[in-house]
Amino acid sequence: MGARARQFYIIVFSFLTLLALSSAFQGKKQYKPCKSLILFFHDIIYNGKNAANATSAIVAAPEGANLTILAGQFHFGNIAVFDDPITLDNNLHSKPVGRAQGLYIYDTKNTFTAWLGFAFVLNSTDHQGTINFLGADPILAKSRDISIVGGTGDFFMHRGVATIMTDAFEGEVYFRLRLHIKFYECW
Amino acid sequence: MGARARQFYIIVFSFLTLLALSSAFQGKKQYKPCKSLILFFHDIIYNGKNAANATSAIVAAPEGANLTILAGQFHFGNIAVFDDPITLDNNLHSKPVGRAQGLYIYDTKNTFTAWLGFAFVLNSTDHQGTINFLGADPILAKSRDISIVGGTGDFFMHRGVATIMTDAFEGEVYFRLRLHIKFYECW
Amino acid sequence: MGARARQFYIIVFSFLTLLALSSAFQGKKQYKPCKSLILFFHDIIYNGKNAANATSAIVAAPEGANLTILAGQFHFGNIAVFDDPITLDNNLHSKPVGRAQGLYIYDTKNTFTAWLGFAFVLNSTDHQGTINFLGADPILAKSRDISIVGGTGDFFMHRGVATIMTDAFEGEVYFRLRLHIKFYECW
Repeated sequence: MGARARQFYIIVFSFLTLLALSSAFQGKKQYKPCKSLILFFHDIIYNGKNAANATSAIVAAPEGANLTILAGQFHFGNIAVFDDPITLDNNLHSKPVGRAQGLYIYDTKNTFTAWLGFAFVLNSTDHQGTINFLGADPILAKSRDISIVGGTGDFFMHRGVATIMTDAFEGEVYFRLRLHIKFYECW
Repeated sequence: MGARARQFYIIVFSFLTLLALSSAFQGKKQYKPCKSLILFFHDIIYNGKNAANATSAIVAAPEGANLTILAGQFHFGNIAVFDDPITLDNNLHSKPVGRAQGLYIYDTKNTFTAWLGFAFVLNSTDHQGTINFLGADPILAKSRDISIVGGTGDFFMHRGVATIMTDAFEGEVYFRLRLHIKFYECW
Repeated sequence: MGARARQFYIIVFSFLTLLALSSAFQGKKQYKPCKSLILFFHDIIYNGKNAANATSAIVAAPEGANLTILAGQFHFGNIAVFDDPITLDNNLHSKPVGRAQGLYIYDTKNTFTAWLGFAFVLNSTDHQGTINFLGADPILAKSRDISIVGGTGDFFMHRGVATIMTDAFEGEVYFRLRLHIKFYECW
């Protein structure tokens, strides 16, 4: 085998190896976001005693449950309405850059899952506009994805996926979510 | 008229006829899905007696109604939260391939219609990921379309339309829907 | 400087001036809708006395509130389900071209804002199909944008933005919204 041919085989072999490795490690295409943001929001659930600080309230409950204590069976059937501050870091007392507004619904009887429908209403020097989210949230999973189905203002017509992580969870009164917002359709 | 000219007129005439026929039979463009699925889901509404089997519960009702009996006026004002098994066929007892999670809202006083907001959370050897649905459901129509507004995992960024058919309806406790999921934007 | 060079500088200078002006007046790209509609819808909230005319009803409320009077703190926590007539003009008694169906949720304690999830179900000689809306509605703003996340029938797979204006607001029983529906993705 001449030097040229050997060189050729080495190149082809390296290429095939890379191909095999990449398909082993990464089952499907990876897309790069055209825009991304990391934001936190903070939810303080009304429990009958914290009216001044609460940012959300239970407004519907299954039979036998009430509106100040989350329902017994993994909160199945509770609907909460929220208006939560959004911050750039994980500090509840940081200056908010907007509000997360909408609802979450506990929707399973034998584990903690929720359905989320809400908007980010951003109003800062960096971002003016809204982002609309929708999706299933298997709360106990370390990281879970919901859909970004539209936006307005700076986020006009954007679509994408948001990866949620529970950044803090204190009793049944406070939780903080970290959203990695990844837009794959920008305008 | 020469042979050439005659031939020309025949071609033009045939073309116009085809055009007229096609616009008569099919008012608008037909798109072919880039991916499609047929799945069933099963809803057993809690009625005060079936706590063990129920997969959904009434959590909101209009004034005067309660949470174990669907409201009088075509159930107007009832919100139900559900976590329903999804199966590949119409058998409630088939092995589930995922869960349909979210809410439906009866929203008309003089007929049966609903507004749906829910996710399919699929977790099988064939499909891993979520599909987000939204739309009006005129329940009594044989077939009706809702929007698929986003997805994650195997359905990353997908959009489409789902055609719903009521596959079974037993009293006011059980119903089964057949969803023909058609994606027109795949990634 | 020769005549050619002077001409060149004039052209470059004019171009830069135009560029500066356009970026000053219009911070971002302007898109032209591929389709647009202006429609009105009319909401008559059930207050315990207007059962015959009411087109919406409060179905969830925070602790201490009831289902015939909107809750005290800027209606925070109220969920209303609606089936409202859609008209081409601002007259409640014009022939409806469809129904607006879904829910709105009052979601702030210190001002009037809502989260909207609803469909337009259009059924007229001009339009057959549904349009799905989602978004935050800062009610007191003169004009606000929500997302159009999907559609069916004539609006198959459409996406866009709807600009809402409150066209009338009478006590806490009747309001009328004007929607400027702008599609930027048509199929």
